[in-house]
Amino acid sequence: MKVTLLCVGKTDDKHVLEGIDVYKKRLKHYTNFEIVIIPDIKNSKNLTQNQQKAKEAEILLKNISNIDYVILLDERGKEFSSIEFSTFLEKQMLSSVTQLIFIIGGPYGFDDNIYQRANFKISLSKMTFSHQMIRMFFVEQLYRAFTILRNEPYHHE
Amino acid sequence: MKVTLLCVGKTDDKHVLEGIDVYKKRLKHYTNFEIVIIPDIKNSKNLTQNQQKAKEAEILLKNISNIDYVILLDERGKEFSSIEFSTFLEKQMLSSVTQLIFIIGGPYGFDDNIYQRANFKISLSKMTFSHQMIRMFFVEQLYRAFTILRNEPYHHE
Repeated sequence: MKVTLLCVGKTDDKHVLEGIDVYKKRLKHYTNFEIVIIPDIKNSKNLTQNQQKAKEAEILLKNISNIDYVILLDERGKEFSSIEFSTFLEKQMLSSVTQLIFIIGGPYGFDDNIYQRANFKISLSKMTFSHQMIRMFFVEQLYRAFTILRNEPYHHE
Repeated sequence: MKVTLLCVGKTDDKHVLEGIDVYKKRLKHYTNFEIVIIPDIKNSKNLTQNQQKAKEAEILLKNISNIDYVILLDERGKEFSSIEFSTFLEKQMLSSVTQLIFIIGGPYGFDDNIYQRANFKISLSKMTFSHQMIRMFFVEQLYRAFTILRNEPYHHE
């Protein structure tokens, strides 16, 4: 099963990029994992928040096929413990799903078209984190989930 | 009011250190904020987990005075939204508390002596994050809380 993280907008934050890289490298040992970044919408200052979300949705949907299982990282999503999240992942791996796509939206959240396409919503925390930092949290949890499924000790850094 | 983050063990993770530094610098504009790091216990390999926690607790308690308000970052703590956390902070600032101490424990959690001294427990997420990464999440949330209290826009990076 392939796991893809689809994000809106590049991050220039060095510490975020480096953090993501650490876990991306570790994840290679467990799964076919890829991060796809949708570029920021051009001239977004002339757009309303809804217009920007609609444009982002258009591009996001182009990166999703009909058979993908799509999970939004969304504040209205289900809160899992790390163990519950690993069980959720395992369930998908044992199903016929060939690609899991996790999506982290832009600063204004998701367009309705994305909510309609989504198969599931997960919330990493009740707290609001920057949509950049959420990427790092997510890859760390994905890595942790695989170590849980393999009964491996998590290497505290 | 002074805000102190008390942590167990140094982090060598460059991306974690850099992330913490970004928010530490920003927090200077809002409050007297300090991070105090208790060194790792020496020869901890010869200790049981409980012995290690007890030794950590001894040193942590030396850094806490009777009048401090102590908040543990603990998985059994209360989950706040970012707005609720800012309201909680404001309440402390309006009280007679002169120092808030947030504590992030070591890899095995807290000794009972620390639970007994604590005034409150907060959980940042149902998920388990490394005790290193939690530091970065926390300083980001502390910064976010102050921008909420001042009605300032949060600068997405």
